[in-house]
Amino acid sequence: MSSQDSIAQDALDRLFLQARSQNGWLPKPVDDEQLRRLYDLMKMAPTSANCSPARIVFLRSAQAKERLRPALSAGNVEKAMSAPVVAVIGYDTQFHELLPQLFPHNPAMRELFAGNAALAQATAVRNGSLQGAYLMLAARAIGLDVGPMSGFDAEQVNAAFFADGRCRVNFICNLGYGDPDKLFPRSPRLDFDQACTLL
Amino acid sequence: MSSQDSIAQDALDRLFLQARSQNGWLPKPVDDEQLRRLYDLMKMAPTSANCSPARIVFLRSAQAKERLRPALSAGNVEKAMSAPVVAVIGYDTQFHELLPQLFPHNPAMRELFAGNAALAQATAVRNGSLQGAYLMLAARAIGLDVGPMSGFDAEQVNAAFFADGRCRVNFICNLGYGDPDKLFPRSPRLDFDQACTLL
Repeated sequence: MSSQDSIAQDALDRLFLQARSQNGWLPKPVDDEQLRRLYDLMKMAPTSANCSPARIVFLRSAQAKERLRPALSAGNVEKAMSAPVVAVIGYDTQFHELLPQLFPHNPAMRELFAGNAALAQATAVRNGSLQGAYLMLAARAIGLDVGPMSGFDAEQVNAAFFADGRCRVNFICNLGYGDPDKLFPRSPRLDFDQACTLL
Repeated sequence: MSSQDSIAQDALDRLFLQARSQNGWLPKPVDDEQLRRLYDLMKMAPTSANCSPARIVFLRSAQAKERLRPALSAGNVEKAMSAPVVAVIGYDTQFHELLPQLFPHNPAMRELFAGNAALAQATAVRNGSLQGAYLMLAARAIGLDVGPMSGFDAEQVNAAFFADGRCRVNFICNLGYGDPDKLFPRSPRLDFDQACTLL
């Protein structure tokens, strides 16, 4: 493979190799235009039958973040409250209702999910998670840092932000510009041969 | 935000904006060095407590792909059989057994998951899916195209490639160099206001 086949090393570093999960934030704001740019990137990456189940609530105001505070694990409170934006990443359990818009060439796809709740749930979780990853890498691509968190009470978050019961929270991700002084040491990764098999 | 804050437009195009899910493949091979490079990128992106549950079986030989064939939906057979490499992306249901290596500063984390099967399963599925997305964007970053597929019989795939019962398939992704003549028209995406809420 020639080196032209890869995106630039700087981009690889910022997306994967040098980027770190952040625990503290510089006092530098994130504006709505950045959030729209982030979404316009992440929305283009693939989901099954283009089902696009992720729903994101961006908490920007102190008031909105206060609604999240009681649901957070103790270790996540300060990280979230100090972040410029907190993205509550959920999935639409009724995503198939939008398939006539998203997958217009195959109306049967809506019926497939409408008639099989287990398949719809697995599809929403899997593809909503894929989109959560796209969100994080799209954020890094436009120069933001991310701090994903799983330590929270899901039912409290659902009650606070998805009260109609149609959407459910998947995970939460702080967004902003990370404070390098708050980084933890990098943890080791699995070797290729621990995670991968070549057949 | 200044334009210097973003990675290059070429990289945004190749990761998100211009990349397409591929349905056919050019007769151009993918070598093992590319698969190792792909893994060395994807492994660095974040997972909860660095749990890294994804396990990938790369099918390179015709013989290995033939073991997958009977599990595939009819519409996915030709796409997979003609792909240079098919990645079977699973997750380790016992991922916490590796946490002493992955999260050495907090031995209690292994016990948390070992004592809560529902939490372990949700964590494996969510983070294994995040890693599946990282795999797809890392593949694009090194110049490969991807063709993810959910249309297969999971139990047949598990029996063929994860026979010990510890890992389970999540989704499958063809890898190679896409044949532009086989692309479908791009499907529409949800508008920002359909998927996102600003609070």
